[in-house]
Amino acid sequence: MKRIVGIAILGFGTVGQGVYKIIKEKHDSIMYYTNAEIDIKKILVRNFNKEYKVEIDRNLLTNNFEEILNDDAIDIIVEVTSSIDQAKDMMVMAMNKGKDIVSANKAAISKYFNELNDLARDNNLHFLHEAAVAGGIPVLKPLGDLVMENDITRVRGILNGTCNFILSKMTEEGEDYENVLKKAQELGYAEADPSSDVDGIDTLRKLRILSTMAFRQDVDENDILLEGISNIKACDIKNLAKLNRTIKLIGDAWVEDEKIKAIVQPVAVYSNSYFASVREAYNSVTVYGDMVGELKFYGAGAGMLPTANAVTNDIIDILFDRQSKVRLGEGLNRQITKDEIKGDFYVRYNSEIISLDSFKRKKLTNESYLIKNCQYEKLKRALKKDSNSIIIRLESEDY
Amino acid sequence: MKRIVGIAILGFGTVGQGVYKIIKEKHDSIMYYTNAEIDIKKILVRNFNKEYKVEIDRNLLTNNFEEILNDDAIDIIVEVTSSIDQAKDMMVMAMNKGKDIVSANKAAISKYFNELNDLARDNNLHFLHEAAVAGGIPVLKPLGDLVMENDITRVRGILNGTCNFILSKMTEEGEDYENVLKKAQELGYAEADPSSDVDGIDTLRKLRILSTMAFRQDVDENDILLEGISNIKACDIKNLAKLNRTIKLIGDAWVEDEKIKAIVQPVAVYSNSYFASVREAYNSVTVYGDMVGELKFYGAGAGMLPTANAVTNDIIDILFDRQSKVRLGEGLNRQITKDEIKGDFYVRYNSEIISLDSFKRKKLTNESYLIKNCQYEKLKRALKKDSNSIIIRLESEDY
Repeated sequence: MKRIVGIAILGFGTVGQGVYKIIKEKHDSIMYYTNAEIDIKKILVRNFNKEYKVEIDRNLLTNNFEEILNDDAIDIIVEVTSSIDQAKDMMVMAMNKGKDIVSANKAAISKYFNELNDLARDNNLHFLHEAAVAGGIPVLKPLGDLVMENDITRVRGILNGTCNFILSKMTEEGEDYENVLKKAQELGYAEADPSSDVDGIDTLRKLRILSTMAFRQDVDENDILLEGISNIKACDIKNLAKLNRTIKLIGDAWVEDEKIKAIVQPVAVYSNSYFASVREAYNSVTVYGDMVGELKFYGAGAGMLPTANAVTNDIIDILFDRQSKVRLGEGLNRQITKDEIKGDFYVRYNSEIISLDSFKRKKLTNESYLIKNCQYEKLKRALKKDSNSIIIRLESEDY
Repeated sequence: MKRIVGIAILGFGTVGQGVYKIIKEKHDSIMYYTNAEIDIKKILVRNFNKEYKVEIDRNLLTNNFEEILNDDAIDIIVEVTSSIDQAKDMMVMAMNKGKDIVSANKAAISKYFNELNDLARDNNLHFLHEAAVAGGIPVLKPLGDLVMENDITRVRGILNGTCNFILSKMTEEGEDYENVLKKAQELGYAEADPSSDVDGIDTLRKLRILSTMAFRQDVDENDILLEGISNIKACDIKNLAKLNRTIKLIGDAWVEDEKIKAIVQPVAVYSNSYFASVREAYNSVTVYGDMVGELKFYGAGAGMLPTANAVTNDIIDILFDRQSKVRLGEGLNRQITKDEIKGDFYVRYNSEIISLDSFKRKKLTNESYLIKNCQYEKLKRALKKDSNSIIIRLESEDY
């Protein structure tokens, strides 16, 4: 006897439409493997007159969340809106009505990670969000497995497709940031307001989720140092290429001397390194566990179908109660420190505004320098007056 | 109330000892996340007087499988022996007694894949074997998820740590095959009789498991073309390095024109490609799905703890009934063809024994040639008389 599971999709942008498409197109296969039918009962939208990339039954559209909330035939809420607080309120209300949640909304999940996970666990409901980190790559589910028998000491990744696309194009075509951003916007790889991507905020949110799950201890958005890519110029790419390096925006969180350190920043990796080979809008996550060693996961970090594939998989996992609920460790309260993050850096700044005389540095060009074994925060403060300056970490030999 | 799950370990080599170690060392963490205690009740060995790398309670050792079979407190059998038919018999007997199975035994699983999976499904038991393919890398579990909503069109990987170690050392140190093999044996990376590794048989078994799961149709050992690495010489590495290529042993199965093609062979990949960056005893698997796109998984392909980590995770998944049982597709019977595998190849042979005059070829050195767009089987037959000859596929631009 087949089971029918009712779902509602909140928000019908790219990801929502992708979920609709996969559930329809792969209906027979999903039914064959799960013996269940995923029945899309409602789709919450703001505007009824929009055109969509998939053909849908317009009777499913509603702008009334209450209608979804009060429909007992809706078992699972697929939250793929672009709101933050409103999305969280809807997820909380839905869980209070006994509905399981799948979400791809990294902003809301990052901000309300503990509240949402706690509520799900307390009510014995699922709150799954594989698509929120690294799009189509299955990484949160394996991570949820690994923490049971590994001490994870580091998670690191190229987590934002827009930034990686821009940096790849700047590197390969020698163009300046502004031109590439414009192209990215025309191609739909970057939004009209690209700030949450290019300023590193999106990467930071994903690192917050990844590191909290990996270290089984709350690593908050405020615990993570942040530097974006919008100040990177063609000359920086060129200067670093001469040192055989390629710039990537990397989110990196690790345990060192029993302290947790986390930072999102542009890193000049070796041009023959693994991360340099992650190009275009692709993402990659590496995880280090004391039993399993190093694992790397690679795939599409964004895009309609890869992201929707992750969402659909979460729906199926809920049908079968197949994933662990997120649960932080007991008694883990390692210090989380920003001040102690050190490294070797490439810096470019206007020497008419700024003096770095107190730093031991090596001149590369009139405007750019290499600085060895320096505290990141100190350097950041010294460059504060020059809003066009940039700090890029140099990958060390043992990175 | 905590649950106690009894297990027995069959075989106590590297992997078995690793499982013992993880279950003991990570006892508290596993208990915290699962609320279950994994209780090792028995360990099946041939010889009672062996020294082990882990300290164990010697009372657990037995050489009597019946004792394990008839112990109702043993719920899960962890089969990590090096036998084939005997291992299969034990797994069948255990399933007939209602016990779930975890195995890392790729030889037995490859040979009896359908029989073991069918028996497990018919009896509503688990038969999990993540550790049998690519050691510590979680790949079979994500693959089991992906097939529900993806048509997988290709699986490909560096699947044997011994071969990859040997080829890496030959490439980096310019040494000949025999010297490196000797070193690998001294370091414990290769067995005294290395034939199943270096002849590609181990890779073939893993590809048989991977491709059958990916294509949801039986791809048998006999369906896969096979060429090993034992004929590769330092001169081949050098000749191909001049063409900016690195040799890797790759298992590759794909769907083309609605036909399935599968081959294990040395491939000269571009030296700046992803597969070239997979060095030492590491493994990598790439999977292509029509929804998710390309995914790559990377990690330790062998070793006590990574492999045992995969086994332990399977045990935990059984506790919670968390993985799909393997089930092939319905009505899928695409033709599996060996004859149609074509490509560009590097060949080295003794021209005093062999003539390749009928092949359009380009001379590289006195003994080695490049041949374009040629049928692999035809070339193989032509070289048959020269037992020292080697065929290496040239990765094409769009590989």
